[in-house]
Amino acid sequence: MVYDLIVIGGGPAGYLAAERAGKEGLKVLLVEKRFIGGVCLNEGCIPSKALLYSAKLYDGVAHGEKYGVTAKELKLDHDYVIKRKNKVVRTLVGGINSSLKKNKVTVVMKEGTITGRNSDGFTVKAGDDVYTGKRLLIATGSVPVVPPIPGVKEGLESGFVLTNREILDLAEVPKELCIVGGGVIGLEMASYFNSAGSKVTVVEMMNKIAGPMDREISEILLKNYQKKGITFNLGCRVTEVKAGKVVYEKDGQSYEVPCDKVLLSIGRRAFTDGLGLETIGVEVDRGRIITDERSRTNIAGVYAAGDVNGKSMLAHTAYRETEVALNDILGKKDIMRYNAIPSVIYTNPEVAAVGETEETAKAKGIDFEVVKLSMMYSGRYVAENEGGDGIIKILIDKKYRNVIGVHMIGNYSSEIIYGAGIMIETQMRIDDIKEIVFPHPTVCEVIREGIFEF
Amino acid sequence: MVYDLIVIGGGPAGYLAAERAGKEGLKVLLVEKRFIGGVCLNEGCIPSKALLYSAKLYDGVAHGEKYGVTAKELKLDHDYVIKRKNKVVRTLVGGINSSLKKNKVTVVMKEGTITGRNSDGFTVKAGDDVYTGKRLLIATGSVPVVPPIPGVKEGLESGFVLTNREILDLAEVPKELCIVGGGVIGLEMASYFNSAGSKVTVVEMMNKIAGPMDREISEILLKNYQKKGITFNLGCRVTEVKAGKVVYEKDGQSYEVPCDKVLLSIGRRAFTDGLGLETIGVEVDRGRIITDERSRTNIAGVYAAGDVNGKSMLAHTAYRETEVALNDILGKKDIMRYNAIPSVIYTNPEVAAVGETEETAKAKGIDFEVVKLSMMYSGRYVAENEGGDGIIKILIDKKYRNVIGVHMIGNYSSEIIYGAGIMIETQMRIDDIKEIVFPHPTVCEVIREGIFEF
Repeated sequence: MVYDLIVIGGGPAGYLAAERAGKEGLKVLLVEKRFIGGVCLNEGCIPSKALLYSAKLYDGVAHGEKYGVTAKELKLDHDYVIKRKNKVVRTLVGGINSSLKKNKVTVVMKEGTITGRNSDGFTVKAGDDVYTGKRLLIATGSVPVVPPIPGVKEGLESGFVLTNREILDLAEVPKELCIVGGGVIGLEMASYFNSAGSKVTVVEMMNKIAGPMDREISEILLKNYQKKGITFNLGCRVTEVKAGKVVYEKDGQSYEVPCDKVLLSIGRRAFTDGLGLETIGVEVDRGRIITDERSRTNIAGVYAAGDVNGKSMLAHTAYRETEVALNDILGKKDIMRYNAIPSVIYTNPEVAAVGETEETAKAKGIDFEVVKLSMMYSGRYVAENEGGDGIIKILIDKKYRNVIGVHMIGNYSSEIIYGAGIMIETQMRIDDIKEIVFPHPTVCEVIREGIFEF
Repeated sequence: MVYDLIVIGGGPAGYLAAERAGKEGLKVLLVEKRFIGGVCLNEGCIPSKALLYSAKLYDGVAHGEKYGVTAKELKLDHDYVIKRKNKVVRTLVGGINSSLKKNKVTVVMKEGTITGRNSDGFTVKAGDDVYTGKRLLIATGSVPVVPPIPGVKEGLESGFVLTNREILDLAEVPKELCIVGGGVIGLEMASYFNSAGSKVTVVEMMNKIAGPMDREISEILLKNYQKKGITFNLGCRVTEVKAGKVVYEKDGQSYEVPCDKVLLSIGRRAFTDGLGLETIGVEVDRGRIITDERSRTNIAGVYAAGDVNGKSMLAHTAYRETEVALNDILGKKDIMRYNAIPSVIYTNPEVAAVGETEETAKAKGIDFEVVKLSMMYSGRYVAENEGGDGIIKILIDKKYRNVIGVHMIGNYSSEIIYGAGIMIETQMRIDDIKEIVFPHPTVCEVIREGIFEF
């Protein structure tokens, strides 16, 4: 049997492609070596959200006296939280499996390797079987970057050093947790374990946290977490991991962070190791599959979507890239745009952004204006955030007067930012946005307030 | 001195008009008899949100065991909550006052009455002074409907019967609270006092709660609150209020609800009593000022915005109506559209909607399709809502394939719905929405999931 499409990798890009292609009537094979749902569902976005929600409830009362809410013996049962997280993951994986079945996707739970071509298409070996597909979609995702720092390898082996995978199944809350890398994963885990009772220290190489997020917003987030008792060591390079400590260097001096556990979260890299791309000649750049704006590789009929192309490393980007690939397969014109892809950090307060930052807009030579407002412009924010220091920044293109970037820190930002994404994606001008009715009282109204400042 | 604009009423429509007109360089007088910010800020939307947020924190731990969070002696300090609410209101009123000052608006804190015209414009008496304005904006808002039911008037006088005004300042939590009217105000207060420890009974004349909200969603909300211990008596007509009880009739039978306090929340009516509209000939219909799509009354130069026109009774509608009025004054073409105005109920779970319901779309003869999905399609919803029964409904016009209605029950709906409003307002088609990247994992993704069902 020749498949219309073989998908390698069952994460967001892979399972969505398989579902949708199956729905369109294509004969689809999905090959996955580990688990359906990928890192996002099993050891990333979703499990961390389950943990963070429990922490949020706990924090709500732990710091509830300013809202008139108090309790004694407030407890966060970490063991229970992990068990519940597993149940949430099982529920969602079950949902994807039913959807794959409903859409008549054949699923093979084995490692898939590309072995070459035959007269019908591309060949993929999984276990002892070889499958042929007219087209391939490669969605093998990414793995954590493990730097060649002395002691890291041994630490990973002994269980002293963890990645996103292991930390989400940690049986006990570490007394002292050292997090190497202050990006999204590092910050979300810092947030949870801080609530769960760990003494958390973050060591970050850059002089700011939260990666490419707006600098001012990342500083506000930093201050919020410093207040909660997290220590941040910025501009610090980890030089060694020893038993019970992380050694780092700053300005030529060496320091140590004593800890029970280390989370390594310095980034992720596209995963194509041993995939057999060379057998069909797919071009890669430092392990990343090179794709065009239609998610096509250099080989006709071979597509790649998600982390494996190294472009964005976000599940929702993967969804969209895979849809674009599928539309190309189906002969529908569609292209990827990366200018309106939101990003969110589910800390407390939440951070969310979409579009250009001041830094990127400057670098691109865009002539822009920026408005910055306190979240206190929202009545709901005032009602729900005693002493809140949230802000919103809106960037518009001066020539076209359309929104090109929105950056927020404050709760609900995670659920608000998609609307700003719509504004950017559909190139709404500020005069259009002024006619939008925002419900009152909401936090999203700060967008409206900001727009009226232009 | 002749003002360019006299605004009567300092609620959302009034203060916004005054601020914006001042900013545009107009000489503006704002006359307000009671308090800047109106009902919304002082005894409506904002104070209720402060109360509900405290209740949400409390409920988070009260029902936290399924998320691994527990406590003993969990307390909601009602007295503190009310004090904090007052502080929130003061902060926000202070903000509006500064903005009025900054925009050089003259504020007179007295009751304003229209007295006629002179050669320069319209005359308004406030206290002993008479002011002249070239234009008038009437924004006198609304008052609670007080029905001619025996005992209600006496109950209001004795403090046994309360309106939205008094209930937000109640010093003690009633043991038994009877709420007459299961609309937005009734449900939000039912929600708070249920959390605060009252035994709450809602008596509603219609056979559903939540007014014009989608019937299925209002039934889900009902079930959620029944589970929390609130009693709902639907299809019931209150016939009398006696000491310590509310008497109602259903199917010819009479029943009683024993209670310490009664909240009367059966609706609001436009307030124009004694305003002197007849002195300049402004047309009203049962107390409501008749306005056109530019917020103009029948008298040139006289505008009305907000609850006083009886159209929508929502603060955010008032904002928009007042902007349209101001644009007309400034000679900018702008008209009101009421098809994309969101509405929100801040219960737990939250309810939000924008655009047509199935009922209204049918009544208008629109050829539409509807998709209904469980909120469980959102991974974040699953992670945060054990046993959640939320849904989303999306309506599209079959001919143009654009979104005409979105209805949701589930938390964060309040902050999500504005994006659906953008879709309706800008007439986005489902193929446009398919290209929008929603951040993952969020609850708002259910919109995306729903759209892909069409």
